[in-house]
Amino acid sequence: MHIIDIIAKKRDGMVLTKNEIDFLIQNYTKGFIPDYQMSAFLMATYFQKMNDQEATYLALAMRDSGDSIDLSAIPGIKVDKHSTGGVGDKVTLILGPLLASLGVKFAKMSGRGLGHTGGTIDKLESIPGYKVELKVEDFINQVNTIGIAIVGQSGDVAPADKKLYALRDVTATVDVIPLIASSIMSKKLASGADAIVLDVKVGHGAFMKTEEEAIKLAELMVSIGRLAGKKMTAILTGMDEPLGHKIGNGLEVYEAILTLQGKGPKDLVDVTIEIGAHLLLDSKIESDFEKAKIRLHEALKNGKAYAKFLELVKAQGGDLDSLKNPENLLSKKLVEVKATSEGYIMDINALDIGKAAMRLGAGRETKEDDILLDVGLDLHQKIGSYVKKGDVLATLYVQDKGVEEAKVLVHDAITIGSIKKTLTLIKKTIK
Amino acid sequence: MHIIDIIAKKRDGMVLTKNEIDFLIQNYTKGFIPDYQMSAFLMATYFQKMNDQEATYLALAMRDSGDSIDLSAIPGIKVDKHSTGGVGDKVTLILGPLLASLGVKFAKMSGRGLGHTGGTIDKLESIPGYKVELKVEDFINQVNTIGIAIVGQSGDVAPADKKLYALRDVTATVDVIPLIASSIMSKKLASGADAIVLDVKVGHGAFMKTEEEAIKLAELMVSIGRLAGKKMTAILTGMDEPLGHKIGNGLEVYEAILTLQGKGPKDLVDVTIEIGAHLLLDSKIESDFEKAKIRLHEALKNGKAYAKFLELVKAQGGDLDSLKNPENLLSKKLVEVKATSEGYIMDINALDIGKAAMRLGAGRETKEDDILLDVGLDLHQKIGSYVKKGDVLATLYVQDKGVEEAKVLVHDAITIGSIKKTLTLIKKTIK
Repeated sequence: MHIIDIIAKKRDGMVLTKNEIDFLIQNYTKGFIPDYQMSAFLMATYFQKMNDQEATYLALAMRDSGDSIDLSAIPGIKVDKHSTGGVGDKVTLILGPLLASLGVKFAKMSGRGLGHTGGTIDKLESIPGYKVELKVEDFINQVNTIGIAIVGQSGDVAPADKKLYALRDVTATVDVIPLIASSIMSKKLASGADAIVLDVKVGHGAFMKTEEEAIKLAELMVSIGRLAGKKMTAILTGMDEPLGHKIGNGLEVYEAILTLQGKGPKDLVDVTIEIGAHLLLDSKIESDFEKAKIRLHEALKNGKAYAKFLELVKAQGGDLDSLKNPENLLSKKLVEVKATSEGYIMDINALDIGKAAMRLGAGRETKEDDILLDVGLDLHQKIGSYVKKGDVLATLYVQDKGVEEAKVLVHDAITIGSIKKTLTLIKKTIK
Repeated sequence: MHIIDIIAKKRDGMVLTKNEIDFLIQNYTKGFIPDYQMSAFLMATYFQKMNDQEATYLALAMRDSGDSIDLSAIPGIKVDKHSTGGVGDKVTLILGPLLASLGVKFAKMSGRGLGHTGGTIDKLESIPGYKVELKVEDFINQVNTIGIAIVGQSGDVAPADKKLYALRDVTATVDVIPLIASSIMSKKLASGADAIVLDVKVGHGAFMKTEEEAIKLAELMVSIGRLAGKKMTAILTGMDEPLGHKIGNGLEVYEAILTLQGKGPKDLVDVTIEIGAHLLLDSKIESDFEKAKIRLHEALKNGKAYAKFLELVKAQGGDLDSLKNPENLLSKKLVEVKATSEGYIMDINALDIGKAAMRLGAGRETKEDDILLDVGLDLHQKIGSYVKKGDVLATLYVQDKGVEEAKVLVHDAITIGSIKKTLTLIKKTIK
C-alpha cells in the first residue's frame, strides 16, 4: 500500500477501504506520512468527499490513534452530548445535573478548547475550589455514587485528529463535512458513552451557516455513531442569536444556576429540555418523549436539578458558599451599552458578540492564552424585543482589556428596526 | 497577502492575480511557504485548473526564480525546440546541425534528465571527447562562428519548478495540464530563444495518452509563450511506436548520423523536417512552408547537414575519427529477439521498449544513477511491416545487466496480427 496511490484514489473519486484509511491515519500519526502528502489528500477529499462508511472508518481510526475512556465500571447506560459550538452555549452545565437528578449516569470528560469563551471545564473553574482533574478511578466512583462527574480530558484522546485538525487549519481544508464529522465523532467515540445527542448549531453565529449543510453534517455524524454501535440523535438548533443572555465563564455558570433553579431564559431551557428528553428515553428511564420533557421541567422547578448541581460542585471540591451569591463570580467593573435608536431587536450577530467576549478576555485565541473567568457580557434583549433609545442593550463585565473594542462590537452587533421577528429554535431532529 | 487565502481562492475556482502567483512562487522558493501548503494548493489546482493568463504568470514566476540565458550577443533570431518526451526521440541531434547548415542560429542548452535513455547531452557524450560544458562566453562565440552549440544546462534554471515538480511527484498532482505547461515553459522561457517549436507527443508511449489532452497542453504552452513574447508553434506527433529504429545513447547518435547523411528512417526524417520548416520560417530564412521542407530535405541529401554536425563535434572537442565507423560507439555484445509468429506488426508498445532500454542501463531511474552509453536496442521492424516466424524483431546491444528482462519486454511489446495498420505521424499543428 502506498500513500500516493491513496491520494490518487481519493482524487479520482473512488471509495477508500478500511485498510487504506487505517494505513493513512496510523502512518500519519507516527510521522511516516509527511504533512505535504496528507494535505494533498485533504484537498482531494474537499472535492471528492467521503461516503458514510469511509467517514466512519476515519473516525474510528482517529479514535484508535489515542486513549479511549472505559466506563464499563459504571453500570447502566452512559450518556453524552456534544454541541458544534455556539455563543452562550452553557447547556452541559445544566443538562448534566438535571439528568443526574432523574437517575441518568452523566460521566463527562470535557475539553478546554479555543473560542469566544472557555470550554465547560474553564467555566466550572470559575467556581472557587472546583477541581477539574480527577483520577479515572475517582471519576468513575463519583458517577457511581452521585450519578455525575464533569472533569477535564485525561489521557491523549484522538491525537491523529489533533494533528489533522492543525493541518486542515492552515491548508484551507477545514470546511469539509466528512472531515468535520469524523473529527467530532473520533472524540465522541472515545468518550465511552452508549447514547449521544448532538446539538448541531445552524445560523450566522454557527460554523454551519445553512440548514442544508447542518443537516448533512448531522446525518453523517448520526450515521458514523450508529455504524460504531452507539445510540444516536442529532438536533438542529438555531444560532441566529446567542443562547440565553449571559456570555463569559462565570457569567455562564451564573445563568446555568438560574436555569437549574427554574429561572432560566426560554431558549436555553428549551434546548436543554429537548436534548435531555432524548437522553431520558435513551437511558430507558422514560419511554414517552412528551412525558420526559414534563419530568425535566419539573426537576428544574422543584429544586432537584439544582440540588444535584450542588452535590456535583461539593463532590469536586467547589465552594458552595460562593454560589449563594453568584454575582461574586463576576467582575465588579461594569460598562453599559445603550440603544441609539428605537424599535424591535431584529438581529444579534452572535459571532460579533462572541468576539466582544473574547476581546474582554473570556476566551482563548491560542492554546497558550490565559483567560479571565469573571469577564463577559449580559445581553438584556433578545430578537423580537422592543427597545427605546437609551435602553441598556447589554452590560459588559470587564477588567482592563478590550473594553472600547467590545463596546463597539456589541453595539454594532445589535440591529434595531421596524419588524418584529420570531425565531424557530429547534429546527429538526435526526434520530 | 496570505497563503491560506490563495489556497482557498483557487479551491473556490477563482482566478489568481499576478501578484498572488508571484507571492506563492517567490515564498515557496525561499522556503517561507511550506510544502504542506503548496501541496494543498496543487491539489486545488488539479480540480479547478488555471486559465492561460494564470499559467503564464506561473511560468514567468518560475522562470524568474533562477537564472535565464542571455543570448543577446548572438545577432538575429535564435530558435529552440522542445519535445514532451518519447522513446527514440533524437530529433535535436539532427535538427540542430540541419538548421545551422541553412543559416539558423541554434544555441541549445539541454538537460540530462531522467527517462528510458539519457538526455541530448548524455547522447552527445557517447562521442569520445565531446565536451558538454562550455563557458557561456565560449558557447555564444561558437554559435556566432559556426551557427550551433549544444551544451549542458549552466546555472540554476527555474529552481522553483524543480522544487514544485518534486512535490507534485509525491502528491498525485503531476497530471495537471496548466502545471505541466508552466513547468515546461518556465524552462523554455529561460532559454533565451526568440522562436520555439514544441513537439507534443501523443499516444500510448507518451505522457499525453489522448489527442484531446495533447491539444489542450499544446494550446496552453503556445499561449503562455506568446503572452511572454515568443514566436510559438506546437505540433502534435504520434508516439504509437518508438521514433526511428534505434534507442539508446550511442545508438541514437548513430541513427542521427545516418539521418544527417540522408539515410534516416521516414518517421524520424518527417518529424525533424516538420519542426525544421517552422523554424526556418520563424528565422525569416524562408517564407514558404513547402519550400522550407524541400530545402531541409536537400541539406540532408547533399551532405551539408552532416558537414555541420562534424563542425559541431569538432568545435566541442569530439573525436571525428570515431564517427567514421559509428558502430564503434556501441557494445559488441548483441542479443537478438525473434518473432514467434507470422503476420503484420500491429503494435510496438513504446513504453515497454523504453523500459527495456532502461533495464539494459541506457537510462536513469534516479538522478544519481550511472548510465551506459553503448547499450540499447535496434528495432528492425515498424508498425505495418510483415514478419515471418524466426525473423529478427530487434537486436539488443547489451553489457551485463537486464538482458533477460529486456528480451522479454521487447518480445512482448511487439504485437503481431493479421491487420496492416498505417499511422498518422503529424497529427496537428498549432500556430
